[in-house]
Amino acid sequence: MKTIRYLDPQSRQVQLGIVERDEVYSVTRQVPQWTDPLPMWYAFRALGVSPDAGAQRFLQGSSLSFASLEEEGLLLPPVHSEEVWAAGVTYERSRAARNAETKITDSVYDRVYEAERPELFFKATAQRVVPPGQELGLRCDSTWMVPEPELSLVLSRGGEIVGWTVGNDLSSRDIEGDNPLYLPQAKVFHRSCSFGPVLLWNSDEVSDPASWNIQLQIERGGTVVYSDVVSFGQFRRSFKELIGYLRRDNPIPDGTVLMTGTGLVPPDDFTLQPGDDIKIRIDAIGILHNPIVGPIDEL
Amino acid sequence: MKTIRYLDPQSRQVQLGIVERDEVYSVTRQVPQWTDPLPMWYAFRALGVSPDAGAQRFLQGSSLSFASLEEEGLLLPPVHSEEVWAAGVTYERSRAARNAETKITDSVYDRVYEAERPELFFKATAQRVVPPGQELGLRCDSTWMVPEPELSLVLSRGGEIVGWTVGNDLSSRDIEGDNPLYLPQAKVFHRSCSFGPVLLWNSDEVSDPASWNIQLQIERGGTVVYSDVVSFGQFRRSFKELIGYLRRDNPIPDGTVLMTGTGLVPPDDFTLQPGDDIKIRIDAIGILHNPIVGPIDEL
Amino acid sequence: MKTIRYLDPQSRQVQLGIVERDEVYSVTRQVPQWTDPLPMWYAFRALGVSPDAGAQRFLQGSSLSFASLEEEGLLLPPVHSEEVWAAGVTYERSRAARNAETKITDSVYDRVYEAERPELFFKATAQRVVPPGQELGLRCDSTWMVPEPELSLVLSRGGEIVGWTVGNDLSSRDIEGDNPLYLPQAKVFHRSCSFGPVLLWNSDEVSDPASWNIQLQIERGGTVVYSDVVSFGQFRRSFKELIGYLRRDNPIPDGTVLMTGTGLVPPDDFTLQPGDDIKIRIDAIGILHNPIVGPIDEL
Amino acid sequence: MKTIRYLDPQSRQVQLGIVERDEVYSVTRQVPQWTDPLPMWYAFRALGVSPDAGAQRFLQGSSLSFASLEEEGLLLPPVHSEEVWAAGVTYERSRAARNAETKITDSVYDRVYEAERPELFFKATAQRVVPPGQELGLRCDSTWMVPEPELSLVLSRGGEIVGWTVGNDLSSRDIEGDNPLYLPQAKVFHRSCSFGPVLLWNSDEVSDPASWNIQLQIERGGTVVYSDVVSFGQFRRSFKELIGYLRRDNPIPDGTVLMTGTGLVPPDDFTLQPGDDIKIRIDAIGILHNPIVGPIDEL
Repeated sequence: MKTIRYLDPQSRQVQLGIVERDEVYSVTRQVPQWTDPLPMWYAFRALGVSPDAGAQRFLQGSSLSFASLEEEGLLLPPVHSEEVWAAGVTYERSRAARNAETKITDSVYDRVYEAERPELFFKATAQRVVPPGQELGLRCDSTWMVPEPELSLVLSRGGEIVGWTVGNDLSSRDIEGDNPLYLPQAKVFHRSCSFGPVLLWNSDEVSDPASWNIQLQIERGGTVVYSDVVSFGQFRRSFKELIGYLRRDNPIPDGTVLMTGTGLVPPDDFTLQPGDDIKIRIDAIGILHNPIVGPIDEL
Repeated sequence: MKTIRYLDPQSRQVQLGIVERDEVYSVTRQVPQWTDPLPMWYAFRALGVSPDAGAQRFLQGSSLSFASLEEEGLLLPPVHSEEVWAAGVTYERSRAARNAETKITDSVYDRVYEAERPELFFKATAQRVVPPGQELGLRCDSTWMVPEPELSLVLSRGGEIVGWTVGNDLSSRDIEGDNPLYLPQAKVFHRSCSFGPVLLWNSDEVSDPASWNIQLQIERGGTVVYSDVVSFGQFRRSFKELIGYLRRDNPIPDGTVLMTGTGLVPPDDFTLQPGDDIKIRIDAIGILHNPIVGPIDEL
Repeated sequence: MKTIRYLDPQSRQVQLGIVERDEVYSVTRQVPQWTDPLPMWYAFRALGVSPDAGAQRFLQGSSLSFASLEEEGLLLPPVHSEEVWAAGVTYERSRAARNAETKITDSVYDRVYEAERPELFFKATAQRVVPPGQELGLRCDSTWMVPEPELSLVLSRGGEIVGWTVGNDLSSRDIEGDNPLYLPQAKVFHRSCSFGPVLLWNSDEVSDPASWNIQLQIERGGTVVYSDVVSFGQFRRSFKELIGYLRRDNPIPDGTVLMTGTGLVPPDDFTLQPGDDIKIRIDAIGILHNPIVGPIDEL
Repeated sequence: MKTIRYLDPQSRQVQLGIVERDEVYSVTRQVPQWTDPLPMWYAFRALGVSPDAGAQRFLQGSSLSFASLEEEGLLLPPVHSEEVWAAGVTYERSRAARNAETKITDSVYDRVYEAERPELFFKATAQRVVPPGQELGLRCDSTWMVPEPELSLVLSRGGEIVGWTVGNDLSSRDIEGDNPLYLPQAKVFHRSCSFGPVLLWNSDEVSDPASWNIQLQIERGGTVVYSDVVSFGQFRRSFKELIGYLRRDNPIPDGTVLMTGTGLVPPDDFTLQPGDDIKIRIDAIGILHNPIVGPIDEL
């Protein structure tokens, strides 16, 4: 089952919808309290209903076109997340890139790549998350910024995987490269995070994530200026260990998103510019699209 | 003017109170919407009322004893903060301590101490903040933990200093020492942060913070096992630059707390133990007290 | 299926629980968003799960004793109702009683009893509802007050019957008797309404309400001073017509309670006194108990 | 001081504004917590600031045109009221009209007009209140409907008069006329109540309400079909007694609106029709305007 959250075109109220091919069926129409996947996930679990069987109950009556919701800018993040966390240096490619930034060997990045304990950091509050299709923003004080396309987990407070979505952990490479202690400033800023639009629910019918590919494509003025793909099979960690470290002595709220780190890094001379257009695709899930804008003067 | 937040002994409802000597006068009794200092701060500012003049309007009628509120465990953080941020390596003493952890010279800590850009990190959400007098908790996977006593700013969304309070940024030295990329895990965990109980409002009548001392005292089994004092005059940064970097491309909510870093570091062979008792005193403001407990099994 | 709402004895958080004999099984433990029956009712309906089948999923693990929840004063109204409405003169006995109050024949009460349109009035907001077991309060300006034991419906916003509970529409007979235009003052006041504790869910397995009896018993100083019973078979209206008139041009919120009017009226020389104890029993549902107190000076 | 509540034309967020001639100055811009008059009223009272002196602090910077807010449909009720109550038969004219409806003499209306205890009833919840300028709706089952123009009080929970506004208690004369027990159905329905747009704050500088006139004008197809005026000097009750009875054993929330009854009744052969346009003017306060629509099929 795939779900999205969106604003109803008429009432402008938040809806949870099931996506079946290009059609979206509102769940909220039948269960007004379900505007977020978590209450539905808990109900399904308690009643022993599988996501795919449960979904069938809602695939009736009128539907909306996913494409037109996207065009009208009505998509929302697929879950309301008070907290977004992210992991780092979870692919070999990422280690190399981080070392390039800092220009040292035997670095903190080498060590964390090899270590039992992963790198985990606080990425965003709900207020800093940009809905799918909306603009991600550059920092005013960075000259080397990149998207980080990441398979992202939606978690329950108990650490269970509710499902998967596509995430973009927009980052400043020069600020972090200057000093790893600047990582929060390189990561946490206005309009620095987006994920969605689709949440693929965790169920027996989902294919093995190790078989998934993550594609990144950056367009500038109608031309593709970067495009690459990585297999999630190259992910060095397991979901279980990331979640275990995230929740160690650290309660997380329902709907927490955990971005699992990037394996796709544009060349070192690449930096994002206002007007760029970013598409991240995980075939099993969907496509996350965000345009890039410059920093705004007034917060 | 000094304010606290507390639970009314009878109704158990949240109150904002003005502290005058040992007496607490409820503000909420007269303005039911003022259960937090921010609405009062905005009102005073808009009406051109100074905190000390405004306070006079409330110093009448029945009062409660501050000491008895403390004894009964009714104190709350002095402001509801959705976000607590902290600065690091803002004192020479802190730089030396960080280098000791990592056992390297010319370290990231030396560099950040000298650099224009300060170290700033996300410390806590409201859920991770422990009220004054309540238990701070150790991590299960750290063997070297210390309190970090810090002068803490309460900020408006616009970056104005509403006032000052006493903060404790409980930290793991071995986890951060292992790798600076582990800083979020060394800093953000269950019951890792406390501040209060008193908020000293920013006004012309407040003495220069550079003249303030911060004292830390740790008791174990009735004996003082560590005690030291540092002058805030040794603080290397200015409030203005810390706030400027915090808010650079990064909107903060009203009531954000910014801890300014520690200048007091127990000897390297010291680690906190369950049962320890921590007192942090800034004479101009007040005393923050928290006992220490071990990690809890079940979150 | 029967549900109650209660405060957990440890955490003091609101729980929805299923009552099976004297045992209470928390639903909220498994579905944290279900602290009220409505979200569960919508989920069951959308998924095609009958209440009695759905209940089975929760009858496992630890349970609490209903009797001890009652003794400890932890019961809550079985549904959070923003609005409580009530019908009047829906039994022959009630018509007679109302005429006695006003001392006239061919009265407004005779007319409404015979008319197609029923009497319906706004009884209470959530703030005026007293939890089961808690004190109902007399008015300071009435000398003739009675409980009104009423079978009560819990409705969805769409007008569907979610279930039934036991209600007490505490009323002043002299104020209404003085002038029917005073009905709101005779009906709507502080601590004038209670219902619960049990919600019997509407399902095929529920017996015909026409077969139910409503018993009222009033104790004073350990002695029963009034006791009577009426069969719901004597109810002159149908649920459908009451709900139809209630919702005619009048949207109601989810969880609205509709009290269906009383068929039990103590003798005309009876009035409630502080210290009285009221029990209303509908065998198919349960017992609602409330003590009576006098008016309070200070609101 | 006069205030309104409105949606900001850009952000669509709720604003409290001070009206000075035709200009509106946002208060919320300076005190973000003040989106409703009550928090400002409590603050002014606690600080000893008179409304008219306090208003001066906000009459600076950019302003909006009241007329354009009205034209764009951005006006809101001047206070968020969880409860709207109303009084009845408070003018001689009203007594006569009510008797006409019921076609009897020595009626309940005569009695309540003469009695010490006034008629008071629950008129509306916040959900049933229509913003100024928006459509009031007729009932589907009434053929005799009228506006009731009423001077309306905005009250604190303590019963103090925060200020005055213009109210319209849309009513069905035939339903109430059929039986006084139907009063709640004649009064409480979808889109049956509106008040505003201006709140005139209670202060020493306000003229005696007894000197105010209330004008009602009903237009149909561009023609005035009814127009009349009544002096508030003909009001039979005092504010104090109405408020006293309202709050007798009956706690009210902050911002409760109390409509004081009507002294203007169109001829008995007049009934409202969809498309009618109602204007109620109290010179000291302002004009409340609402068009009339028919009942809607689907709630």
